[in-house]
Amino acid sequence: MDDGFFSDVTGPIPFGGLDSQDPLSFKVYEPDRLVLGKRMEDHLRIAVCLWHSFNWPGSDVFGVGTFDRPWLDPRVDPMLAARAKLYAAFEFLAKLGVPFFCFHDRDVAPEGSTFAATQANLDTIIDLIAGHMARTGVKLLWGTANLFSHPRYAAGAATNPDPEVFAFAAAQVKSMLEATHRLGGANYVLWGGREGYETLLNTDMKRELAQLGRFLTLVVEHAAKIGFKGTILIEPKPKEPTKHQYDFDVASIYGMLKAFDLEDRVKINIEQNHAILAGHTFEHELQLAAALGILGSIDINRGDYLLGWDTDQFAMNIPEMALACYTILKAGGLGTGGFNFDAKLRRPSIDPEDLFHAHIGGMDAYALAFKLARRILAEGKFDQFVRERYASFDSGYGRDIEKRRVGFRELNKLVLTKLGEPKPRSGKQEYLENLLNTYLHG
Amino acid sequence: MDDGFFSDVTGPIPFGGLDSQDPLSFKVYEPDRLVLGKRMEDHLRIAVCLWHSFNWPGSDVFGVGTFDRPWLDPRVDPMLAARAKLYAAFEFLAKLGVPFFCFHDRDVAPEGSTFAATQANLDTIIDLIAGHMARTGVKLLWGTANLFSHPRYAAGAATNPDPEVFAFAAAQVKSMLEATHRLGGANYVLWGGREGYETLLNTDMKRELAQLGRFLTLVVEHAAKIGFKGTILIEPKPKEPTKHQYDFDVASIYGMLKAFDLEDRVKINIEQNHAILAGHTFEHELQLAAALGILGSIDINRGDYLLGWDTDQFAMNIPEMALACYTILKAGGLGTGGFNFDAKLRRPSIDPEDLFHAHIGGMDAYALAFKLARRILAEGKFDQFVRERYASFDSGYGRDIEKRRVGFRELNKLVLTKLGEPKPRSGKQEYLENLLNTYLHG
Amino acid sequence: MDDGFFSDVTGPIPFGGLDSQDPLSFKVYEPDRLVLGKRMEDHLRIAVCLWHSFNWPGSDVFGVGTFDRPWLDPRVDPMLAARAKLYAAFEFLAKLGVPFFCFHDRDVAPEGSTFAATQANLDTIIDLIAGHMARTGVKLLWGTANLFSHPRYAAGAATNPDPEVFAFAAAQVKSMLEATHRLGGANYVLWGGREGYETLLNTDMKRELAQLGRFLTLVVEHAAKIGFKGTILIEPKPKEPTKHQYDFDVASIYGMLKAFDLEDRVKINIEQNHAILAGHTFEHELQLAAALGILGSIDINRGDYLLGWDTDQFAMNIPEMALACYTILKAGGLGTGGFNFDAKLRRPSIDPEDLFHAHIGGMDAYALAFKLARRILAEGKFDQFVRERYASFDSGYGRDIEKRRVGFRELNKLVLTKLGEPKPRSGKQEYLENLLNTYLHG
Amino acid sequence: MDDGFFSDVTGPIPFGGLDSQDPLSFKVYEPDRLVLGKRMEDHLRIAVCLWHSFNWPGSDVFGVGTFDRPWLDPRVDPMLAARAKLYAAFEFLAKLGVPFFCFHDRDVAPEGSTFAATQANLDTIIDLIAGHMARTGVKLLWGTANLFSHPRYAAGAATNPDPEVFAFAAAQVKSMLEATHRLGGANYVLWGGREGYETLLNTDMKRELAQLGRFLTLVVEHAAKIGFKGTILIEPKPKEPTKHQYDFDVASIYGMLKAFDLEDRVKINIEQNHAILAGHTFEHELQLAAALGILGSIDINRGDYLLGWDTDQFAMNIPEMALACYTILKAGGLGTGGFNFDAKLRRPSIDPEDLFHAHIGGMDAYALAFKLARRILAEGKFDQFVRERYASFDSGYGRDIEKRRVGFRELNKLVLTKLGEPKPRSGKQEYLENLLNTYLHG
Repeated sequence: MDDGFFSDVTGPIPFGGLDSQDPLSFKVYEPDRLVLGKRMEDHLRIAVCLWHSFNWPGSDVFGVGTFDRPWLDPRVDPMLAARAKLYAAFEFLAKLGVPFFCFHDRDVAPEGSTFAATQANLDTIIDLIAGHMARTGVKLLWGTANLFSHPRYAAGAATNPDPEVFAFAAAQVKSMLEATHRLGGANYVLWGGREGYETLLNTDMKRELAQLGRFLTLVVEHAAKIGFKGTILIEPKPKEPTKHQYDFDVASIYGMLKAFDLEDRVKINIEQNHAILAGHTFEHELQLAAALGILGSIDINRGDYLLGWDTDQFAMNIPEMALACYTILKAGGLGTGGFNFDAKLRRPSIDPEDLFHAHIGGMDAYALAFKLARRILAEGKFDQFVRERYASFDSGYGRDIEKRRVGFRELNKLVLTKLGEPKPRSGKQEYLENLLNTYLHG
Repeated sequence: MDDGFFSDVTGPIPFGGLDSQDPLSFKVYEPDRLVLGKRMEDHLRIAVCLWHSFNWPGSDVFGVGTFDRPWLDPRVDPMLAARAKLYAAFEFLAKLGVPFFCFHDRDVAPEGSTFAATQANLDTIIDLIAGHMARTGVKLLWGTANLFSHPRYAAGAATNPDPEVFAFAAAQVKSMLEATHRLGGANYVLWGGREGYETLLNTDMKRELAQLGRFLTLVVEHAAKIGFKGTILIEPKPKEPTKHQYDFDVASIYGMLKAFDLEDRVKINIEQNHAILAGHTFEHELQLAAALGILGSIDINRGDYLLGWDTDQFAMNIPEMALACYTILKAGGLGTGGFNFDAKLRRPSIDPEDLFHAHIGGMDAYALAFKLARRILAEGKFDQFVRERYASFDSGYGRDIEKRRVGFRELNKLVLTKLGEPKPRSGKQEYLENLLNTYLHG
Repeated sequence: MDDGFFSDVTGPIPFGGLDSQDPLSFKVYEPDRLVLGKRMEDHLRIAVCLWHSFNWPGSDVFGVGTFDRPWLDPRVDPMLAARAKLYAAFEFLAKLGVPFFCFHDRDVAPEGSTFAATQANLDTIIDLIAGHMARTGVKLLWGTANLFSHPRYAAGAATNPDPEVFAFAAAQVKSMLEATHRLGGANYVLWGGREGYETLLNTDMKRELAQLGRFLTLVVEHAAKIGFKGTILIEPKPKEPTKHQYDFDVASIYGMLKAFDLEDRVKINIEQNHAILAGHTFEHELQLAAALGILGSIDINRGDYLLGWDTDQFAMNIPEMALACYTILKAGGLGTGGFNFDAKLRRPSIDPEDLFHAHIGGMDAYALAFKLARRILAEGKFDQFVRERYASFDSGYGRDIEKRRVGFRELNKLVLTKLGEPKPRSGKQEYLENLLNTYLHG
Repeated sequence: MDDGFFSDVTGPIPFGGLDSQDPLSFKVYEPDRLVLGKRMEDHLRIAVCLWHSFNWPGSDVFGVGTFDRPWLDPRVDPMLAARAKLYAAFEFLAKLGVPFFCFHDRDVAPEGSTFAATQANLDTIIDLIAGHMARTGVKLLWGTANLFSHPRYAAGAATNPDPEVFAFAAAQVKSMLEATHRLGGANYVLWGGREGYETLLNTDMKRELAQLGRFLTLVVEHAAKIGFKGTILIEPKPKEPTKHQYDFDVASIYGMLKAFDLEDRVKINIEQNHAILAGHTFEHELQLAAALGILGSIDINRGDYLLGWDTDQFAMNIPEMALACYTILKAGGLGTGGFNFDAKLRRPSIDPEDLFHAHIGGMDAYALAFKLARRILAEGKFDQFVRERYASFDSGYGRDIEKRRVGFRELNKLVLTKLGEPKPRSGKQEYLENLLNTYLHG
């Protein structure tokens, strides 16, 4: 591995512009281009994930791995393999030119024979990562702990019926939260994984929900204790691998946060594919989180609307992505959050450069989506339409309703004496859809 | 209509027992049979709904009505038609022998040319209903206002961008809440209908959510003002007729109630078909509502798991219904709630007795499901299994976790010094499924 | 109605180009622009449907009509209303500037008190339509008979268990096929509607499939008898209004056509919304029909991937539509077929000009999609990629396989002696997706 | 492994009857009980599959294996491991007391370094299997080749764009077909696995469909050459692992078989979980295959209607299973086919006896479903209802329609002169559903 793992791609990937015929160049993504007074890179804060791209061999439920990932060979010494993987990953990050990465503890450091050995492995690797980060300038968007792959978590981590597992998960998150803090991670993410159930026949939902609340509270408390200033994020997913997961969607998580008094301490990391598995559009989940004040970060990928599992494809659907960016911009951006590539190659995409194609295409697509969103926002036509649509609530009895100055009796009287039958108004959906298409394809 | 609308069925429908060959007799449902010291009728509190069974002509999106419902003929005088409908409905209720009914304001009383006339119509009809109730002994499980059929509600009622519509809806609910109170209704139900959006392009979700909270608060306040002691219920439905409804599922509503400080004032009316449209089992929604303390009442029907709309078929799936009843029994019953038949005939079921077949079958099915559930609960095997599964949380460090006496540091130390790798335990799902089948088919 | 129904829109809708700020102008659609030596209008052959746009009041399962459609008022004399509707429809067609329209018999002519009267009504109206067509130059893309709205068809038309209904449907299709022929219709379409079942408990599927085959054969035979040279088309839809429809998707219909020896006589009319209800992409259905030689025409609309019913929204999704157009162009076009707007306004879109916005937007979107598809085809990059991917089948043992010159023994020997383990090749999906986006957003 | 792998379960599993409290006994399944003059075992022909139960470690996409399967340890010599696996499998088969098993080539014999070595491995193992079969009396229901797990099949086997892969798949199927023949297998099954596409961007569907037809033809031809008298079966699955599979459902396969002239040579193996993934009920697929004359065998399991992937749970839903058995009995049984357990434990079910619980429960459930179905069939009420419903097609003009003696002109005349408006008849769905429940829960 002297010359690097991705020796066929020289890097860094250049900006070539729309007319570039080189598939290994960016057509739209220009990190240093100023948009609204800020570098494009600093708006998007794009991150590459280490699990799909470096820790997954290209297997699926019906087939073994197809990719060349020598560090995943079970015959290689695990810590040696971990080192090789890091070299390849940071080579990719540097050649691609992304500012951030994300990882689970188990993506980078193997378990040892005892938990102490596991923690020692992680410590060793975190040192190496710190070196790679210093060398390349790549930063950590967020870290997270893998509480779902090991058999001990088969019935959940925080929501496991066995307190041994709860304790083990606590110890694991403690390590990884501290590691994230040490690496200057901007956020810490919790994805439930198996925090749900396979069958209600063996489940006490009330007890499990209470355990989940307790665990989240412990995370927040420990973050405070160690001085971690990043954002704590939860990532909803409705199902898969389990039958049902408690962090089903934004609305479910909001209810939990309210129940545990955590709505001011925890925000949400929203993924497109998880949104549609829950029966919602990506935009819906973003707009709801923004309305509730808990929009934190996003996982960029795309699911297949006609398939019922997490396909985690690279996002390419510009109209959908532009609406996502528009919602984020309107909400004032993501703060410490960013755009993390929780996306994986299709299993037959076995060429080394396919990993570059996928990320370049996804970055260009989001760069374009962002530019379109910025233009839509700048011209303000949608914003104005929506504002005017609700404007009657800004004064008169509309305002009285908003301010809770009137009750049913007053409103009844108002209808009887003054208002009568409401005047119908068109919702203008088709007009607005046409208008949107002029931006997307103008 | 001298001899009654259902003159072919003499009634009251008798109990015939399992061996009865008469399809117009009950096989299992025995209102006076004592179960756990209470009459079966008082456990189930079954209600017939007036909308599907008396106010729907058998139409669908692709075809006109197929049923003989003379009172729905647009050429008949509306108030005359309303009277005829009530006669037929109470004839059916009495012949079937159910203790309760449910209705929307618009199921029984037509709109007038002004809102004052509409209220007068309702007043007149409520008097008639009171008479029918006194005559037959049938009681009102709940009333509700139809805030979705009239064009004025095309963009929602409480969440309409126009305060005129909000006010109109308020006046309408005020009337119907008072009418429900006057008839001694045990509950008042709100189903959003169109409290959602068709497109986010014209929607301010934050504003609409706030309006919805305001409206719910006004309902609760007005109920208190008039001395209504029944339960206020919201019925979740994720979508249909709109693209998205805010009262998506139990978890979504819980979050809203917490946000509006209404979680102690409002409970939930759960429907099987709405549950599965949201991607949940009926049992899940029931158990979640019970765990959150907001289980109120249920709408009994069945959806088709392979169709994406509200088919509202009569419930016949005993295994599913037995689990629903088990969950309700474990939760201590439904209080003021009951089992409302929000179910409709298939469009080709045009014989007058088909309406009896459907209700008889549904009542028998729920009676059987209830008996099975009672036996499962009485033997306690599932309960014991679940209790033992979580028992390690009842003492030692498990209890410390529950009582919040330990943090991440203590748990980490515990893992390192004492616990080590958790011992794996089987979830026994297949064993439990077999056990369940011995009850269902023993 | 002196000044026309759509008096606020002067028409004809002009071409304004991409920079036009007038929402009532075309941005892309230019009927006379030459593309590949043919007028854009003659490529797309766009049709407006009379059902959604003129025969539907804006009702849904939960609400009555919201639109101003005076001819749908049940108090108006039916034939008078029919005349008014035609005036409005042809005013719209002419102002919009589309070359084609489509209709069911019942969209234009009401049933009479006897079937003879019904046929007389249709005859009268067909004369009027012929006059409107001559006056405006608008042509008939296809006609069809409504075999699903009347109660007599509640259990199907051709697949009804009652031969009376089969005969009635036959008589009705005979009339409408002859009417279509008389008006110079380019195609005749059959949509099953209720040719399926609600429950298998009362269904003999084998018998119903045989009846369906018989009916299709009779249609083809009668078309030949009367000298109708247009294409006979079937339109698949998997479900809704019934539980299951036999014309589920392209693959199902192909099997039926093969079973009835009709695969050379009947083609398919494919609708995007019906495709996704069957679990397929629009492009899949188009490509499969093209591969099987039965691609006939398309219904342009869009479904909502997250809703389980036929939303029939106006198509706006350019990426999806461009792939559809590409598939059609590659297949050599649609012949006598065209692009029919089987799309309806959202229920709150009540302004008269909303109907123009919707159609203008849809026409512009398809015009753009068509232009993009033409460019993709012209540059040939995808075509070349695909050709090269399968090229090894064009010679050597690959060709022997294709030509059936080798069996399992020869292939086994080849593997053992010569081929060994196949060389892996990347499927390049992400590369191709990036390439596609350069066309869609270049 | 001296005392056997399942040493905690003595076996053979006894029949205990409904009152047995021993979870390791059958409650309903009695192999020797005569039903309709045939042993229950010979009716059901139940088979255990070697893949889920012996070749899968309890892994899923998000986690590694949880089960104790020492022969899957990559450090064990593959052929040694294969021997150990066979011992455990036949121990289980014998203790459970099932008459049949099913397997893929790769479930039992590992690939070698060359294809010749792979074939030699299979030969060796087939000898061992023959010995186990002779020793235990267990027979082979069907064999099949795994054409989806190895990376070479990432883009399909028969439908791969590379003829090298086609040839390799041919050689592999040749071996396994011959092995199946040698072991006296009653059927040979083909499951497409990856015979479909990930993206249409790189796919020539027409070419792939032709290749698939060619491959199927070669299978049939080779079976004839070697004198294999068993049935050739295809198993439909709509999607997963790929985006779309050509053998989508029964209707799709029927069309393919017709196109390739194979409808008399190939039948279908239908799986419940695959049926619902395609949007159909299990009963629908069975009834359609029976109507088309291609019903061959079934894979018994259950999917989760609310999850979008193949959960392959053990079948427990008696109502659904009873309808499946009723359809099979009405079709005259499955011939050489049988009931194969394509079902797997839930991942947390890690106790060795869980595998027994699951199969015992499934066998009892199907035994009960079969008994219920037999009774429904014997009493003939549904059959009679359905026959009478279509009876008007058995004489008069109904018969003329069936026999193609009348055309549109005759039918039109008949309507005008004699029939008029059809008389409406109820479909009696609710009545029939009630009747069904009296059988299921009587």
